[in-house]
Amino acid sequence: MSFQFTAQTSADGVLTRPFALDEITGVLWSPVTASGPLILLGHGGGRDSKAAPMVGRAHRLVVAGYSVACIDAPGHGGRPRTATDDQQIAAMQQAMATGEPVGPIVVRYNLHLADRAVPEWVATLDALQELPDLAGVPVGYFGLTMGTAIGVPLLAAEPRIAAAVLGIFWYDEVLAKLAGQITVPLEFLLQWDDEHIPRTSSLALFDAFASSEKSLHANAGAHEAVPRFEFESAVSFFGRHLPAA
Amino acid sequence: MSFQFTAQTSADGVLTRPFALDEITGVLWSPVTASGPLILLGHGGGRDSKAAPMVGRAHRLVVAGYSVACIDAPGHGGRPRTATDDQQIAAMQQAMATGEPVGPIVVRYNLHLADRAVPEWVATLDALQELPDLAGVPVGYFGLTMGTAIGVPLLAAEPRIAAAVLGIFWYDEVLAKLAGQITVPLEFLLQWDDEHIPRTSSLALFDAFASSEKSLHANAGAHEAVPRFEFESAVSFFGRHLPAA
Repeated sequence: MSFQFTAQTSADGVLTRPFALDEITGVLWSPVTASGPLILLGHGGGRDSKAAPMVGRAHRLVVAGYSVACIDAPGHGGRPRTATDDQQIAAMQQAMATGEPVGPIVVRYNLHLADRAVPEWVATLDALQELPDLAGVPVGYFGLTMGTAIGVPLLAAEPRIAAAVLGIFWYDEVLAKLAGQITVPLEFLLQWDDEHIPRTSSLALFDAFASSEKSLHANAGAHEAVPRFEFESAVSFFGRHLPAA
Repeated sequence: MSFQFTAQTSADGVLTRPFALDEITGVLWSPVTASGPLILLGHGGGRDSKAAPMVGRAHRLVVAGYSVACIDAPGHGGRPRTATDDQQIAAMQQAMATGEPVGPIVVRYNLHLADRAVPEWVATLDALQELPDLAGVPVGYFGLTMGTAIGVPLLAAEPRIAAAVLGIFWYDEVLAKLAGQITVPLEFLLQWDDEHIPRTSSLALFDAFASSEKSLHANAGAHEAVPRFEFESAVSFFGRHLPAA
């Protein structure tokens, strides 16, 4: 596969380099001066590597000394959609419009996307670790919602990822089985008043992880209202497990 | 009532002053240079204001710019025990020895202690806020286990407390009713593998608080194994709600 940076900008001590690995597109953010451990960011459904929350989180992590990479999920960020993508997105939109539970559709579609995304993340990590600054650095993963649907199978498949922040997703038997193979330190987010994900479903998914260090952070509020201070907590979490120089 | 400091020492920038308010004994820790918001520490059952975890937490908070007070609960820290204290402690020890559930006894006894401790905390806060450095400063509360059994009725009774960290306690109808009167920002700890407190019991107590900002931190591990990083999280929590200068 062919890896290349497609642009390069630098501001406020953050080097931003969009890249392409064959048809996979993404962004690598790094400190201008030195390069610390690498955090992989998984974006949410309908978002992409250039979405404001990804850019904000990446900048925060670079300030803390990390390099950060995000790739666009299949069908996201301008990448081509398949007929399945179109069908599943239409089904989600219809459920939203009619007020039917969107959970079963999201779970099914996101796990389908994970089948396509996991090999792409592995190939991206291979390519990034061939860069001199990132060879052999410790790796962490942060991803909520669809970033968890992709993150769980990725963590189960990828022994290079040493710590993860996940959450805001439904229990599912396939996911739970994969979670049972994951033993790295974990911080897991749940919204206590989530209008889409039942509490018992989130709690059961958290329970399924085999990690001996795992922390559930359940915050009052709706699905979209994850408090901003949770990202600071994630930075502290990575600081404990993947300390930046 | 008569308030007096009974000693004064200073080390590493921490001024330590044991005090007595009539028969109530406690300790006030303060920065040597300036005095920030006041954090009240509630100790656990069988501990007291001079126990190592209290001293360690107090020093950490003073370094972050806070003043910190802890009082000995009734029957604790050398304070006289009543016949009820003796009976309840014997009942707890017997349950521990025979492997019977200790929860119902702890809940009953700690709520009895709370009836005696809450007016003592209120009187202590009155006395402390007559000190020039602490007049009108914002107040927070940190207390796990018995410190939660006392903290919940204290928070319900005491409008001067503006933020609290609680947890590691059982659901109880009386506590839950009081929790429903509490609206200040809350961080609440739970041990996911607690051998004494069922998960559903802890989750139900967390659910009972009326706070619009409340965060549950549930960590893998047994009753006594609350991770050290949770106290750092508590310091960050107080930093958001009661910022020290």
